[in-house]
Amino acid sequence: MLMREFILYSRTGRTDGRFNSLREAGRLDVVYQCILMSIFTSHALRRDVTFHAILGGPPAPPLELIVEGATLRDVHVDERTWEDLIRNALHGKSHPGISVKKNSLQQLVKQKSNIFVLEESGESIKTIDLGESPVFVLGDQVGLPKKDEEFILRYGKKVSIGNRAYLASSCVGIINYILDQRESFD
Amino acid sequence: MLMREFILYSRTGRTDGRFNSLREAGRLDVVYQCILMSIFTSHALRRDVTFHAILGGPPAPPLELIVEGATLRDVHVDERTWEDLIRNALHGKSHPGISVKKNSLQQLVKQKSNIFVLEESGESIKTIDLGESPVFVLGDQVGLPKKDEEFILRYGKKVSIGNRAYLASSCVGIINYILDQRESFD
Repeated sequence: MLMREFILYSRTGRTDGRFNSLREAGRLDVVYQCILMSIFTSHALRRDVTFHAILGGPPAPPLELIVEGATLRDVHVDERTWEDLIRNALHGKSHPGISVKKNSLQQLVKQKSNIFVLEESGESIKTIDLGESPVFVLGDQVGLPKKDEEFILRYGKKVSIGNRAYLASSCVGIINYILDQRESFD
Repeated sequence: MLMREFILYSRTGRTDGRFNSLREAGRLDVVYQCILMSIFTSHALRRDVTFHAILGGPPAPPLELIVEGATLRDVHVDERTWEDLIRNALHGKSHPGISVKKNSLQQLVKQKSNIFVLEESGESIKTIDLGESPVFVLGDQVGLPKKDEEFILRYGKKVSIGNRAYLASSCVGIINYILDQRESFD
């Protein structure tokens, strides 16, 4: 089965469950928005998508939050549902399809192949060869740290979806759509 | 200035501010998600977009909630921010760019021209002539009522973004992207 993966770098995303709202938790609301656009279609889950967020905020960075469409269940699409799910995951409680582990952006990327870093200056997604089961790396509202980006570009390529600066979640939704369109012509 | 408008029909969306969460308010979380994808880009608002939701839930349907990118300010992208904004608007408090008025889907559509109803069976958005300042009508998680759809199709056309059933918010994000791409080639 062809897979799709998204890796979001959340520079300030909090790494424990002590918060009152996702926004106040180092902008974990951005992580939620990306999960929404990664995994959900109308009344269904994208079983072929895995979403990763590397959380770089206090108190125990870096952590990897993983949401696997293949095994996810008992979820809704709203932010409050995901506030509870993310808080519980960071507290160490398990839920099908959601897990947390100690991992850095560089370590995660080293385990992957077919890596694309989203950048306005990259090659157009319309012409680039994405190969099978591409992995897309996105920055949050601040962007990727320069050092990490240079590291990742040793393993992957820059790809662009256009000249506008979109929300990370919009980028995910757009990439999913473009990949859907390609598959429907196969 | 060329404009874009989105009209979401929220069959069950609550029409007063008495609720504990958007999800419990007849799925107003779907309205929030569509606002997110309509109005926001990275660190900026789409000044050329107006979003409308027709709320059909208790106690006083139908109401129109209007969010105007042109005049919106002092907002964030997270759901809790919008829970407060929507609750306040339904309570009659004013906020720049957000308003509520008594209106039905059919009345709203009659005031518009260049109307497109999103449907998988419609003409492809890649080939259809959208003209200037198109208005897109979308159903929520349940879809448009048959009678309203028939009425609207007297004024507009069916348009399709593909064979998959997307979240209403994903549809909005995809349409914004397709329109961005067109404008960048003008």
